Amino acid sequence: MSEVKEKAMLAKQAAQSMGNLSTQQKNDALLLMADALVAEQESIIQANKLDLKRGEESGIGASLLDRLALNEQRIAAMAEGLKQVIELPDPIGDKLETFSRPNGLLVEKIRVPLGVIGIIYEARPNVTVDAAALCLKTGNAVVLRGGSSALNSNERIVEVLHSALSQSAIPVNALQLILSPDRSSVDEMLKLNGLIDVLIPRGGHSLIQNVVKNATVPVIETGAGICHTFIDQSAIHEMAVQIALNAKVQRPSVCNSMETLLVHEAYAAQHLASLADAFSQANVELRGEEKAKALVPYMKDASSEDWDTEYGDYILSVKVVSNLDEAMDHIRQHGTMHSECIVTEDAANASRFLQEVDAAAVYHNASTRFTDGFEFGFGAEIGISTQKLHARGPMGLPALTTTKFRVYGSGQIR
Amino acid sequence: MSEVKEKAMLAKQAAQSMGNLSTQQKNDALLLMADALVAEQESIIQANKLDLKRGEESGIGASLLDRLALNEQRIAAMAEGLKQVIELPDPIGDKLETFSRPNGLLVEKIRVPLGVIGIIYEARPNVTVDAAALCLKTGNAVVLRGGSSALNSNERIVEVLHSALSQSAIPVNALQLILSPDRSSVDEMLKLNGLIDVLIPRGGHSLIQNVVKNATVPVIETGAGICHTFIDQSAIHEMAVQIALNAKVQRPSVCNSMETLLVHEAYAAQHLASLADAFSQANVELRGEEKAKALVPYMKDASSEDWDTEYGDYILSVKVVSNLDEAMDHIRQHGTMHSECIVTEDAANASRFLQEVDAAAVYHNASTRFTDGFEFGFGAEIGISTQKLHARGPMGLPALTTTKFRVYGSGQIR
Repeated sequence: MSEVKEKAMLAKQAAQSMGNLSTQQKNDALLLMADALVAEQESIIQANKLDLKRGEESGIGASLLDRLALNEQRIAAMAEGLKQVIELPDPIGDKLETFSRPNGLLVEKIRVPLGVIGIIYEARPNVTVDAAALCLKTGNAVVLRGGSSALNSNERIVEVLHSALSQSAIPVNALQLILSPDRSSVDEMLKLNGLIDVLIPRGGHSLIQNVVKNATVPVIETGAGICHTFIDQSAIHEMAVQIALNAKVQRPSVCNSMETLLVHEAYAAQHLASLADAFSQANVELRGEEKAKALVPYMKDASSEDWDTEYGDYILSVKVVSNLDEAMDHIRQHGTMHSECIVTEDAANASRFLQEVDAAAVYHNASTRFTDGFEFGFGAEIGISTQKLHARGPMGLPALTTTKFRVYGSGQIR
Repeated sequence: MSEVKEKAMLAKQAAQSMGNLSTQQKNDALLLMADALVAEQESIIQANKLDLKRGEESGIGASLLDRLALNEQRIAAMAEGLKQVIELPDPIGDKLETFSRPNGLLVEKIRVPLGVIGIIYEARPNVTVDAAALCLKTGNAVVLRGGSSALNSNERIVEVLHSALSQSAIPVNALQLILSPDRSSVDEMLKLNGLIDVLIPRGGHSLIQNVVKNATVPVIETGAGICHTFIDQSAIHEMAVQIALNAKVQRPSVCNSMETLLVHEAYAAQHLASLADAFSQANVELRGEEKAKALVPYMKDASSEDWDTEYGDYILSVKVVSNLDEAMDHIRQHGTMHSECIVTEDAANASRFLQEVDAAAVYHNASTRFTDGFEFGFGAEIGISTQKLHARGPMGLPALTTTKFRVYGSGQIR
């Protein structure tokens, strides 16, 4: 039997009894995990050095090396993350509905774990700890398949977490790490219907698309964000500059940052030049279509591809539009239904934008960067869903649960 | 451009504005649809006769012909079904959550339409009307792909519904029927990410599995049900007989009927013979393993395949088990997580069964046949979800919606 199948079976077996765990039992386990990470940090850092060395040798680049690197501060942050998950309310066992039927049946709709969650991710070893914590807190078993560049780090982290779990009420087998670096182990996970209940890919576009396109197990799609900010005619200039700059430069690499700025032509005529200067001073490369370039000649040319590109970088495409409808049309064509913003003082336009734009989060006069579990007050999140089924937007613990109906009878038949 | 793609694009375009429709506008449209079906029943019955004739010629069998057949009563029932959907509360626009953040952001979580729903189904033309009604009531556009055996009926029904929609606020293009009988039209629908937001297959096992296995569009899996009834040692015999018989014979063809009866050995020793007689009198063929056959020698042999077979017929597999754990193990191995029942007077066993068995609906002392939108009081349903994501169990109107976050700011940035 393959490693993937064997570990998924062990996870499924472990998951069977995990719906019965109390919140206290799960929190105790998470605390043991946090303490073990700190106690064993030296061995984790040693394992991480192997990954860093191999990464350097294979020339994976400075930013990837930085994501991969662990030190005492980062391990402390991982332990802190675990403690934050302890603080989150446990959704398992919540009664979402209770109703009686005329025939006397009593029906309860209860939150229960999903079962086995598969997480497929890339370089950062902290995802190993985050994902494990969120899945275990919700009574799920988890099969992790991290990037091969972090294999030594992940293996040591999971060993440490296993030793913590062995002292807890959570079965050790509830946490599985796939060690095979072969891509075939991912391919196999995608088809493990009956053993894995849901897959959550976390990473870049190609990783996510591979999972979405090839999985037969249900998937929660996360991540891709081509987010827009539309500055309307009536926008207050200072507010518009602040919001647009923040959406672009506060952290350009993340999915809720802005990729395209849409500007009403009346606003543009008056303010695009100074707005563009603000971006230039923040080292943002601007790429505009004709109307934008006519106002700001130093912009580069935007190609048709630009409107469909998630730069994740200090680059911004800029388009001047005639009105709200043209802005919403552009968003409809090029957006990824993640986060979209209108800056306006016109209440009717704001209302139409919030009503008609189809996205996980729509903003009036605030930066798209707020689409985030912590910012929404949900605590740690497993990702931001960009699909419409099951969960949409920042996914807190309830997104890792399902429901079942418990029906209490006294001999009822149809 | 292919028919499927063209119609999906028209549906998507129509869907854009449908989130703005009022409940009254949608209900008015449904009433026009109901009236039009009755007014045009003659032409629908004529079109149906073409399908019936072709079906007879190709020898599709009496039960399929019966499903396909329309008459005045059945068309009246379709119109009545539309009126029942009018009575259902409209979930669109519901505020599921409202909260303020310390930075002053106001966040609302709102129910919105999914967008475009694709329904792939088989012979019965009433699904055309049901599915259209439920999707349109929730502000969704719908692309229907019915069975080729009902093509003439479906085409005429949709023409009639289109004429009704043309007098309503719902765009005519919100309702699309794929006319191509080629299987390639189904294959194309499965991959229309970006145009179709969710697929709901309705029909037999192979239809559903084809969709689940090959779709890249998210799917809500419905239908398959290998449901069990476990009669525990302490069960009241009369109640157990009633519940088990009802679960099997009240309507054997549906997904919530029982396929396998699990009987505690102590109960079996005393009562299996008379229980088996009751089933035999109801024309149910019994297939037992050794222990069951030892008690009821006229049972046929159950093969290992029997435990994984959804008979949908007057056939029942029977297994004698030593205890609750063996029963739950069997369900875990062979169940489809649809509906599972325990008949017992032992409160601790009932509690364990309801807690530990992983299914959309778990029953204590009531027939599994109650897993149904009408029986749960949800009104008309689009199907019974057997997956864990998004919706589980009978799917009422909320299952045809998603959510979005509306965020109201006054210049907030991170």
